[in-house]
Parts: sequence; structure tokens; C-alpha cells
Amino acid sequence: MNFINKLNAAWAANDSLLCVGLDPDMERLPAQFRGTPDGIYRFCTAIIDATADLACAFKPQIAYFAALGAEGQLERISAYLRDKYPHIPLILDSKRGDIGATAKQYAREAYDRYGADAVTVSPYMGSDSVEPYMEWNRGVIVLCRTSNPGGSDLQFLEVDGKPLYQHVAQLVADKWNSNGQCALVVGATFPEEIHAVRAIVGDMPLLIPGIGAQGGDIEATVRAGRTDAGTGMMINSSRAILYAAPRAGEDFAAAARRVAEETRLVINAHR
Amino acid sequence: MNFINKLNAAWAANDSLLCVGLDPDMERLPAQFRGTPDGIYRFCTAIIDATADLACAFKPQIAYFAALGAEGQLERISAYLRDKYPHIPLILDSKRGDIGATAKQYAREAYDRYGADAVTVSPYMGSDSVEPYMEWNRGVIVLCRTSNPGGSDLQFLEVDGKPLYQHVAQLVADKWNSNGQCALVVGATFPEEIHAVRAIVGDMPLLIPGIGAQGGDIEATVRAGRTDAGTGMMINSSRAILYAAPRAGEDFAAAARRVAEETRLVINAHR
Repeated sequence: MNFINKLNAAWAANDSLLCVGLDPDMERLPAQFRGTPDGIYRFCTAIIDATADLACAFKPQIAYFAALGAEGQLERISAYLRDKYPHIPLILDSKRGDIGATAKQYAREAYDRYGADAVTVSPYMGSDSVEPYMEWNRGVIVLCRTSNPGGSDLQFLEVDGKPLYQHVAQLVADKWNSNGQCALVVGATFPEEIHAVRAIVGDMPLLIPGIGAQGGDIEATVRAGRTDAGTGMMINSSRAILYAAPRAGEDFAAAARRVAEETRLVINAHR
Repeated sequence: MNFINKLNAAWAANDSLLCVGLDPDMERLPAQFRGTPDGIYRFCTAIIDATADLACAFKPQIAYFAALGAEGQLERISAYLRDKYPHIPLILDSKRGDIGATAKQYAREAYDRYGADAVTVSPYMGSDSVEPYMEWNRGVIVLCRTSNPGGSDLQFLEVDGKPLYQHVAQLVADKWNSNGQCALVVGATFPEEIHAVRAIVGDMPLLIPGIGAQGGDIEATVRAGRTDAGTGMMINSSRAILYAAPRAGEDFAAAARRVAEETRLVINAHR
């Protein structure tokens, strides 16, 4: 099943637009997972088990694995997810972008090595840096308007009376999405910009980071980004779920589940 | 020693502006290196040994390692280079770009795990996606004008009467380079644009891919990019050197050395 169909099915099956980000920061892991060879694997799979019926996607951030030389644990986490929850899309967040011959190697990394259903990519190097991914019938999620403060440095520069990120949205909608494999990253910290992107790209799915630890407003995000079907979004939360403060009697996984459930509830109240 | 000083010393020691790119494509390796666990390591270190007195830098492209799950071999190649040729800068070509917390993980990957002297990064996510790298006193090489055909899709969009890539050059020169750690990627396929970037950034080093397999003109490149000192460039060749066709009696390493020597000679004729 291709990414867009799988995502549609997951939205429906779990009644959820919540994407759970897997950013295993060794300094923030519960004590029992630190300093052991497979601690990251055990932590991430416990989070997956605790939230798999509440999420429309899981999104490991490869930087956290690469910094530790823990690609092997990411391979095992990906295999676990595909095996135990094959209906939930796996998004590899790696934001690669390079010339065609190199992009093909990155596509192999994402789709063949990790078995990802979709991968995030940077648009800065243009069409032939994205094309190689299209050979696989999977998802390609292009950075458009990012949630960080510095995102405006380039993305808000004005081109023909419109900010650059809107040109990226138009380029993806008009050209790069010819096979219907694309989605866009648009940060929750800018709801009016989500609205502008939604107006350009029709029903194309949006991956929306920036709620939770980054402070984006869920209601404004959902109102700006929802499609007529009340879906169209993967609203990502990573740190707020992974490192939720347990209440009395809770462990980290129960706390993560509680926050994921609350987040899904707030999202669904505004769909 | 920081990256810029190390690069200056390597330019002088080897009388060379040639950067040798390490893109080990399994399908193109000589037969004796294919299908063995450490074939990539043995191939890349043989290339390093054959060209270390001709190069101002080595630049492994991480995608080729990531596609194969061969990060361990990249670690060993990096250690070999640092140990045996500590005066030659190691540039990790990974073109990462992400929010601050994530960028810090990528900086750890490049500088701590691989011991790189410099790393390539994408500017699309702006200042706070580059800042974390500055905590290490190493090099940060920002994508500006790339050598691939699709590079124009975004980089040539007009902002205030100038193409976007010139804004990136200005941004790096005026703001991001406050500690003198930055360099820029500008493709050899566009000599007049190298010239425009050189006019904006003064003596800042330029990493210039696109000669060799990509067809850029060496003379035009050198004339456009040289500084008053006759340096200022890391002119990269990867495939043309790695996969040079051996003449009668040559092996792959001798052929690589011959092409590297010829390339250095042509570059130096126009400095």
C-alpha cells in the first residue's frame, strides 16, 4: 500500500491525526534505559506499544540515532514497527537533499534499509534532488514552512509578492506531486501560514511539527490545516510525549500514553 | 587547529586546491572490493594513500555509506585519515539541516563521531539550524549555489532584484560567519555565479563540486573563484578520480592518482 493510502487508513482506524515523534535523547531517557546497548530500542518500542492505537504515524528523527552510532537500533525499531503495527506509517525524518546520484542513495537508506513509508526531504537543491525518491512508490514529505525561529530567514523572503515557502508549496503541488506521493512540512507555530499552504495544495497531507515542546496552538493549527474530510494532517509531538512527567503511580509509558491521548482528544475536538 | 587554518596549511603544503570526494558506489568498485565486509574501507583508504599528497581535503559523501549500513566503515576511514594524514582536512558531506536541538545531534555525528573538520549544511531552515555547529570550533560549509540542474528551482528565484543564492551568500558573510568558521558550496557548472559569490564573501573558502563527471570547466572555475592569494577554493572531484579508467599496466589507485595529478595541474595553471 502506498503512503497516502496507508495514512488515510491509519487516520480512520485510530481516529487520530497525531504523529508520535521518536527523538531518543540519551540524557532524557528514564534511568533504566541509559548506558545499555539496546536502551534506545527498548525505550522506543515501549513508547510505540503505549501509543500505537492513538497515532496515525511514527516519526523517528535519525539525528538522535546518528549522533550515537545507533543506526542498528533504528533498524530494529523500524522492523518492530513494520512487523507489529504494519498499518501505521513509518516516517523517517532525515531532511536529506542532494544531487540525483546521491539522492538515490538516501532513498535506499530510507526505503530499503529502514523500510520507511515516507521520508522528509529539503527542497533547496530542487527537482532532481527529489526525483530519485519517486522510483519507490512511497511518500516524500518536502520541507515548506518550518517551525523554528530561523525558518523565516529564507522561507519568508519575498518572491513575486509571495513568501518563498508558498512558492515551494506551489512547486510541489504543480510539479513534484505528479504521482501523488508528496506531502509538506508546515510548522504549527504559524497557523495562518498553514492556512495559506492548505489553500495552495488542496487535500495534500501536511506534517505539522511544533505543538508540545515547541508551543504551537493545537486549536488554531487544526482549524487552519484540516481538509473537508476533517483529516489532511499528521500533527507531530515528540518530546512532550516521550518525556511526559509521570503522575503518582504512573511509569514513563503510561505518562506518554496519557499525554498522547489528551493531545489526540484536543485535536479531535476541533476537526 | 580550526578548519580554515588547517585548510590554508593544506593548500600550501600540497600546492593544491583539489578536494577528493569519497563516494564509494558498490556497483562501480573494482571487483576485489565488492561483496567483502570491509571492501569500502580498503578501497577508500587506498584512494586516500594514492592522493594524499595531491589533495587539500577529502570529502566522504555519507549517503553512500548510509545506503549500505556502512557507517562503521566511514568511522574507520575517518580515523585512518586523521591518524595517517592529520594535516589534510576531512569534510563530511551530509547537507543536514534541522531545528536547533536536532542540529546539535547532527553536529555530534559529524565532529565527535567522525572527527570531521567541517560539515556541509543546508540553509533552508535558517540561522538556528546552523548555530549549534558553532559550539565546536570547526568548519560549517553552507549550500549556496549547487551544481545540479534542479538547483535553479529555488536558488535562482529573484528576491529584491537578486537571485536567492546571493542572499544566502550575503546572510552567511554578514551574520553566520561571525566566528570565521564558514565556507560556501558553489557549483562549478556556473562560473559567473562563482564570481558573483566571490564578490560578496571576500576571501571565504568555496567548496566547488561539478568538475569531472558533472562537466564543469576548470579554467573558468578557477578564474571566477580564486582569491588574491590564488587560493580560496576546494575544487571537488569524486567519480572522475575514484573510477578513473586504468591505462595498460595501471591499477585503480595509480589511475586515480594520475587523474588527481592532472586535475591539480590544470587547476594550478590558472591560479
